[in-house]
Amino acid sequence: MSEWAVVTLGEIMLRLSPSGAKRIVQAENFDVVYGGAEANVAVSLSCFGHSVRYVTRLPENALGDAVIQFLRRYEVDTQHTVRGGRRLGIYFMEPGHSLRPAQVIYDRRNSAMAEATPEDFNWDAIFKGAGLFHTCGITLAISPSAKEVAVRAAGEARRRGIPVSFDFNYRKELWTVSEAREAMEVFLPYVNVLFAGVRDAVEIMGFPSPTSADPQGQIQETMTPLLVQYNIEQVSSTLRKEESATRHHLSGYTLDHRGQLHMNKGHTFDIVDRIGGGDAFAAGFLHGWLKGWEPDQSLAFALAASVYKHTIAGDANICSEEEVQSMISGEGGFSIRR
Amino acid sequence: MSEWAVVTLGEIMLRLSPSGAKRIVQAENFDVVYGGAEANVAVSLSCFGHSVRYVTRLPENALGDAVIQFLRRYEVDTQHTVRGGRRLGIYFMEPGHSLRPAQVIYDRRNSAMAEATPEDFNWDAIFKGAGLFHTCGITLAISPSAKEVAVRAAGEARRRGIPVSFDFNYRKELWTVSEAREAMEVFLPYVNVLFAGVRDAVEIMGFPSPTSADPQGQIQETMTPLLVQYNIEQVSSTLRKEESATRHHLSGYTLDHRGQLHMNKGHTFDIVDRIGGGDAFAAGFLHGWLKGWEPDQSLAFALAASVYKHTIAGDANICSEEEVQSMISGEGGFSIRR
Amino acid sequence: MSEWAVVTLGEIMLRLSPSGAKRIVQAENFDVVYGGAEANVAVSLSCFGHSVRYVTRLPENALGDAVIQFLRRYEVDTQHTVRGGRRLGIYFMEPGHSLRPAQVIYDRRNSAMAEATPEDFNWDAIFKGAGLFHTCGITLAISPSAKEVAVRAAGEARRRGIPVSFDFNYRKELWTVSEAREAMEVFLPYVNVLFAGVRDAVEIMGFPSPTSADPQGQIQETMTPLLVQYNIEQVSSTLRKEESATRHHLSGYTLDHRGQLHMNKGHTFDIVDRIGGGDAFAAGFLHGWLKGWEPDQSLAFALAASVYKHTIAGDANICSEEEVQSMISGEGGFSIRR
Amino acid sequence: MSEWAVVTLGEIMLRLSPSGAKRIVQAENFDVVYGGAEANVAVSLSCFGHSVRYVTRLPENALGDAVIQFLRRYEVDTQHTVRGGRRLGIYFMEPGHSLRPAQVIYDRRNSAMAEATPEDFNWDAIFKGAGLFHTCGITLAISPSAKEVAVRAAGEARRRGIPVSFDFNYRKELWTVSEAREAMEVFLPYVNVLFAGVRDAVEIMGFPSPTSADPQGQIQETMTPLLVQYNIEQVSSTLRKEESATRHHLSGYTLDHRGQLHMNKGHTFDIVDRIGGGDAFAAGFLHGWLKGWEPDQSLAFALAASVYKHTIAGDANICSEEEVQSMISGEGGFSIRR
Amino acid sequence: MSEWAVVTLGEIMLRLSPSGAKRIVQAENFDVVYGGAEANVAVSLSCFGHSVRYVTRLPENALGDAVIQFLRRYEVDTQHTVRGGRRLGIYFMEPGHSLRPAQVIYDRRNSAMAEATPEDFNWDAIFKGAGLFHTCGITLAISPSAKEVAVRAAGEARRRGIPVSFDFNYRKELWTVSEAREAMEVFLPYVNVLFAGVRDAVEIMGFPSPTSADPQGQIQETMTPLLVQYNIEQVSSTLRKEESATRHHLSGYTLDHRGQLHMNKGHTFDIVDRIGGGDAFAAGFLHGWLKGWEPDQSLAFALAASVYKHTIAGDANICSEEEVQSMISGEGGFSIRR
Amino acid sequence: MSEWAVVTLGEIMLRLSPSGAKRIVQAENFDVVYGGAEANVAVSLSCFGHSVRYVTRLPENALGDAVIQFLRRYEVDTQHTVRGGRRLGIYFMEPGHSLRPAQVIYDRRNSAMAEATPEDFNWDAIFKGAGLFHTCGITLAISPSAKEVAVRAAGEARRRGIPVSFDFNYRKELWTVSEAREAMEVFLPYVNVLFAGVRDAVEIMGFPSPTSADPQGQIQETMTPLLVQYNIEQVSSTLRKEESATRHHLSGYTLDHRGQLHMNKGHTFDIVDRIGGGDAFAAGFLHGWLKGWEPDQSLAFALAASVYKHTIAGDANICSEEEVQSMISGEGGFSIRR
Repeated sequence: MSEWAVVTLGEIMLRLSPSGAKRIVQAENFDVVYGGAEANVAVSLSCFGHSVRYVTRLPENALGDAVIQFLRRYEVDTQHTVRGGRRLGIYFMEPGHSLRPAQVIYDRRNSAMAEATPEDFNWDAIFKGAGLFHTCGITLAISPSAKEVAVRAAGEARRRGIPVSFDFNYRKELWTVSEAREAMEVFLPYVNVLFAGVRDAVEIMGFPSPTSADPQGQIQETMTPLLVQYNIEQVSSTLRKEESATRHHLSGYTLDHRGQLHMNKGHTFDIVDRIGGGDAFAAGFLHGWLKGWEPDQSLAFALAASVYKHTIAGDANICSEEEVQSMISGEGGFSIRR
Repeated sequence: MSEWAVVTLGEIMLRLSPSGAKRIVQAENFDVVYGGAEANVAVSLSCFGHSVRYVTRLPENALGDAVIQFLRRYEVDTQHTVRGGRRLGIYFMEPGHSLRPAQVIYDRRNSAMAEATPEDFNWDAIFKGAGLFHTCGITLAISPSAKEVAVRAAGEARRRGIPVSFDFNYRKELWTVSEAREAMEVFLPYVNVLFAGVRDAVEIMGFPSPTSADPQGQIQETMTPLLVQYNIEQVSSTLRKEESATRHHLSGYTLDHRGQLHMNKGHTFDIVDRIGGGDAFAAGFLHGWLKGWEPDQSLAFALAASVYKHTIAGDANICSEEEVQSMISGEGGFSIRR
Repeated sequence: MSEWAVVTLGEIMLRLSPSGAKRIVQAENFDVVYGGAEANVAVSLSCFGHSVRYVTRLPENALGDAVIQFLRRYEVDTQHTVRGGRRLGIYFMEPGHSLRPAQVIYDRRNSAMAEATPEDFNWDAIFKGAGLFHTCGITLAISPSAKEVAVRAAGEARRRGIPVSFDFNYRKELWTVSEAREAMEVFLPYVNVLFAGVRDAVEIMGFPSPTSADPQGQIQETMTPLLVQYNIEQVSSTLRKEESATRHHLSGYTLDHRGQLHMNKGHTFDIVDRIGGGDAFAAGFLHGWLKGWEPDQSLAFALAASVYKHTIAGDANICSEEEVQSMISGEGGFSIRR
Repeated sequence: MSEWAVVTLGEIMLRLSPSGAKRIVQAENFDVVYGGAEANVAVSLSCFGHSVRYVTRLPENALGDAVIQFLRRYEVDTQHTVRGGRRLGIYFMEPGHSLRPAQVIYDRRNSAMAEATPEDFNWDAIFKGAGLFHTCGITLAISPSAKEVAVRAAGEARRRGIPVSFDFNYRKELWTVSEAREAMEVFLPYVNVLFAGVRDAVEIMGFPSPTSADPQGQIQETMTPLLVQYNIEQVSSTLRKEESATRHHLSGYTLDHRGQLHMNKGHTFDIVDRIGGGDAFAAGFLHGWLKGWEPDQSLAFALAASVYKHTIAGDANICSEEEVQSMISGEGGFSIRR
Repeated sequence: MSEWAVVTLGEIMLRLSPSGAKRIVQAENFDVVYGGAEANVAVSLSCFGHSVRYVTRLPENALGDAVIQFLRRYEVDTQHTVRGGRRLGIYFMEPGHSLRPAQVIYDRRNSAMAEATPEDFNWDAIFKGAGLFHTCGITLAISPSAKEVAVRAAGEARRRGIPVSFDFNYRKELWTVSEAREAMEVFLPYVNVLFAGVRDAVEIMGFPSPTSADPQGQIQETMTPLLVQYNIEQVSSTLRKEESATRHHLSGYTLDHRGQLHMNKGHTFDIVDRIGGGDAFAAGFLHGWLKGWEPDQSLAFALAASVYKHTIAGDANICSEEEVQSMISGEGGFSIRR
Repeated sequence: MSEWAVVTLGEIMLRLSPSGAKRIVQAENFDVVYGGAEANVAVSLSCFGHSVRYVTRLPENALGDAVIQFLRRYEVDTQHTVRGGRRLGIYFMEPGHSLRPAQVIYDRRNSAMAEATPEDFNWDAIFKGAGLFHTCGITLAISPSAKEVAVRAAGEARRRGIPVSFDFNYRKELWTVSEAREAMEVFLPYVNVLFAGVRDAVEIMGFPSPTSADPQGQIQETMTPLLVQYNIEQVSSTLRKEESATRHHLSGYTLDHRGQLHMNKGHTFDIVDRIGGGDAFAAGFLHGWLKGWEPDQSLAFALAASVYKHTIAGDANICSEEEVQSMISGEGGFSIRR
């Protein structure tokens, strides 16, 4: 469908969640999911019809094999996923319900990807024919050598004229604000398409707090200088309001370097699985960007895609473009599709 | 409890749904349910205390046996369910959640019932002592020979003075509007009690679109001529508003041939399993009709029964009259019944 | 964490619930939970950091062993849980959904605890070092000899200067109003901290119906004379409004013997498992009481604890003080705790 | 298929087994099965094509309904199963594996059937058109009033010229040897077809220990006087050798009142579920007896039926005559039946 | 690993098996597996390191998608799997246990592949770079048009100098002996590597029954003329002895056109899942053949591969060459591989 | 029951196994078990009636809590289990079946226990009142600091006159032979009761290979000098013969420092879960040793206990002394325990 080949790079983990509504301490079984921020973007873009490659490092064992199988199943190219290292990163996810928030235990240190180095990868082969490169802040955060890999990848991409997409994805459990800022200052100059919010600009990058009272004003005040400073083409993000752990409202914005801002009032919905909602937004937006849609059209698609993801079990948004479009158009309502 | 023996006729299928919240492509397990429009009516009427017979054709294998066991379990008579043919119809049902609609894949062609002929059945024995016959539009749609069976059954019923109940149940994936209209024109003259909505009258039967702005007016404008033309005693239907795939509002109406219209403002509720909601309404209404209740009482019962069904797993509304009455009365509220 | 040793006494049962959303008649599997009103209080107080002892009588078989294991798992002391008798009480719980209420079948007669006598227990050892004794009306109701055990225990506690906490927990399927009143009149004189509502005072204890129109007035009118008559220090309760079987609003009050009334407007929430919600409230309130908090602080904690319980599978509120405090403070909202 | 209507009478229980290979103390789920000695015979005879009625007393709740549904599913008539009493008997079954034996916890006291009386049943209606009555020693053992029911039923049967079949089924956990002997001495005079072994005759009924070294001799020495004394037509039994909890050898014998003894060397097999193996033997033998087969042919069928049962999950031998015959003939071997 | 690209063609079906040890009539859940004779060969060869392409026709729905995902997961190329037609073939598989044989219900008529025609496929693209083509007798049997597809594919392969492998796989439920012989007479001239047994040669192809008493003699007597007549290079097969439905002995032979016969005494083993055992043998033998191993080495590998398959859940032998070699060498015994 | 307090020290891990018979790459669910060599000994000794303490270091998260709950459930004292460190060790266990061996993936590096130091523990409190200390070679192997902890613990025990029990448990994936020998040479001088085999003495400790042909001779030749050199009181071990991954024969020996050798011919059995079989042997032997049984009696008990473990799901041998004695006596055979 698309001629664009997308390259994504990052860490993919084994996610373990108690079956049913149990807490981790009660669990007699864990449901098995494989996922990671960039892998989720990769799978979703592949489901939207793009040819996508995912680059990571995986251990030489059955868990590494299972990751490969998961990616191949959704037609993500794994030719340049190298094998080695000691372990697959793991996280334990206890889903929340109503007023009880979800809880996550990370066990991702010393993963194969965290110990990868730029020399592990064949950059020429990886980027051959590529039209977009995507990674995110988590990959910068998990280890100095993973950061080196991501920075090298971004450099290799830009050197070949391939645009770079980046999701801020700041995770406070992985690094401090100052570590993050330092890394971002290195990485952002490579970025063409950014996913980030006002808080990222202010709290991490140190841009001044907005003085405006309304969201539009706040976005333009804080994000415009960010775009200018790092020569970024477009920045977008969801705005999430949580009525409870299992009912959210999602809206979003996109702003380009000429200051053109689009906002979308979004959707309110109940949640099956909230992991990967941001990645689904990024994939949705990139789908529109790759197809040359207008920013507001891409934004609407990105939001609907993200909502769709929240109703699907697993990290990845395994729905088709048609399914997302049907949510946007409202045609057929919520009746059974026969 | 009731002296009325009800005869229902139609196709019953194997329904396969992914366990948990998975999509069909993710499924490692399918939950097994047996159901079909008229079988659902049969089971519900049996649970309400009527003696009910179900007539169909089933393959001579373990799946056919399982259907028989399902029906017998709920005390539906299967003596006149004949065995033969090649296969049991199947449908795959991916439940929706929140803003993601459910999806169904039908695999019902060449089923034993679709290949049944009127000669397969012993009509004298089937209708002995019967007080009501019920079938629906799906049986007319699945094949020419099933249509012949249904038409023959309706004729045999009326010839013996047994009233005929019919649910429009138009399914666009089974036939075209013109095929449906042609079949309905043959069948409706047999019908005493009908379940159909304004859209059925207008879009399928070709009655003029209503000019009235309010639902009451629309119903009277379109359904009254239908009742008159086909000499039908009573027509009823739910009116469904879908907030999402898992939250609906259900109201309904019933109109008799003298133009007496009752409407009920219904209920808003969350959904466990929406399949069979219309069949539960029909069974609820027929229960009142068989017991000689006033139409508005039957309508209230039918709506509550349908709501009850939406909270029960499986196609069939396996609840008692007392349970439905308790929902109508509101007595005991939603506290635990101990 | 706490120097207070709490002694609780009552019956713990095997709870069997159909897996998934099935009804009891459909069940091919039952989920296994062990719980009982006082045991739920015991487990919750232990999770809040108190040293807690649970006193009961259990059969000498694997089910009795499983109960012991369940209690030990949550660090509840079982040294004085005696073994003997014929059987473990059982209840079958069909969870409700939306407009369909839950249903419970009790099968608890002749349980080991119902046939316990005061002589089965070593009261000196049980109360050594204890700072609080808690039981509830169910233990008075299940059999005359269990009532004797509870009354004896309360007497032994008070004789040692240990305050007594009591939850009314009137269950109409276990005894009549007059049986209950008779037993309560014997028991209430021992009570320091009570959990009961206006209906308990009026309908069971025969206090005059309140004339006030507002809840505050009703509580003060009916509960103040109860506190005075039985020399009770504090009475508290939830006030529950049920939008459906799976969505409730919970508020509450606490009133002391000087007439000081606190009310809390509470929370609205969706429900995973509603069994044990009242026990979680009692445990939450007792936690504050044991720590010497102000009554309104204890009340707020008790309500949040009860809400937390409704989101947890099983009878017992296995959450920490920190988790409840985080719900009260609202800090972190409903975002994932990483 | 058969004109013979068989009446069986006894207690049916809820069986709860840990899912998977877990022990009872480890169980988070119990698999649900309904079964009882005579109900198992009833279901098996129904699956072999006989019209079978099952007579018992069941509580008025969803568990009683579930039993009725189970029986109806296998086309066992439940018209004369009366409702009332307090509870359904329960047993917890921990399956054994290899050298670890299975363990059972009974919780069957005060069941609806144990508290049934002869006046609960309409004997005229029950035995109308019957060709055989079957019950077993467990029904005599569970309570004095159940024993009265069984004795009354046997008397009613014989008074109408209906032969009586009886399975000794001595269970030492239910009564003492002397209680059993006393009851058997009352019951055996009604019996035409008996299922019992050498140990039953010697240890319960007090017949002299056999002096013969070989099984044939032992059977003839002990069982012949039993047949003579009580005027019994035929006695049969399995002989079981247990290599482990999950691998058995089953042989059997049948002896008639003229001293004609048949033995069958039987089968060695692995076990899926050993409960109901003896009942499947009795049903298999009665099938041959009802069809007028030669005793050795009935014995071979009974043994193969019993083996079949050991490979089926649940108490009841839900296989067809054809499936058992195919095991006897060996035709098709163990290859897949397509 | 291998430069050889293997093309396989055939039908892949949805297999549904009752979870646990239940029979089909008892099933509340079906385990989902996708498999078919040639697809199983494809997956196994891919797991052994070959680049493999699978050619079939699949419906345009989620079940067709799931098949594609299954194949891609195991790195089988699906580029030339065309979409269209009405349905995916289904079979219901009730596993046997001990002396109870497995039972299969086929529901495969009118499948997308059964209605495929040679024009659906792009033969040039399919065979580009291929080193082997494999299909089997089932594809010839399912419909005249599927047979045409298979014959055309074999012709296209040979025309390009690509050797053809064929597994007899006679299924009596799909066609008669005379239909099979007629089709085989057309197909066998294309075959280089055959999988067939003495019974196939005698009973289907009509070669004279062997007069020899020993297996070696029988094989040479019957298979040598078959090889000669159809100019086949090599014929191999397993010889299966079934102690029970879950314990088999598997040996095998391979014979070349010069009359060189190798036999292997094989293995005795317990079975997890017996479907696909023959396909695993074929894949194992072809692996050796593709790597140029000696026939006896290929035979030993094929037998061990087939045994391995019987211990794996699902149709396909998802094990590595190393795992099979380790079974052959016996190194490490049956101790845990850490 | 016993006055002896046993202290065990080691690492306990989260074990994840695919549900059903699936391989790790196929797993959609993992069964959750917590276990480790010394924890398994602790749980088993507690089930045999000893008061047992387990000393380890666990992370401060829900997984650490779950371990504590698991140990407390079986009444193992966890007061001296300290919290801290980064993660809980994990291993993935793919059970074998028949001729397919089990496979384990370890992911235990950097576990909380591997990073424990002797200063983390309060040795005085830990050993107060203790009568035995037990640890094993795995704890020496997982990290230098864990080795230090184990050596320090052994020293603290011996300094207080508490005998030390040690299981060799050499795991080649954790360290080299020379690393192991070096550590053992430091540790063995502390040991009173040893679990080790001929291979351990020869291959790890470098004692000369035995010249004797029979096992008795080999044991005496190699183990006697080991006992002498390190002044060890008693050495015991199982001897395992594996017919397949799921059928083993287990025999064993015990030898004391005076050269008195006992051998036991053991048992052949099918396996539910083979993990922890050696630990169950050690616990069984120590049970006899603690009770002052004769060595041959302890050995018989240890072997039966180990067999029992192989039939139980999970790492730990949760059976009672009575259950093991009943296996030894053979009383009751393999019939159901009612």
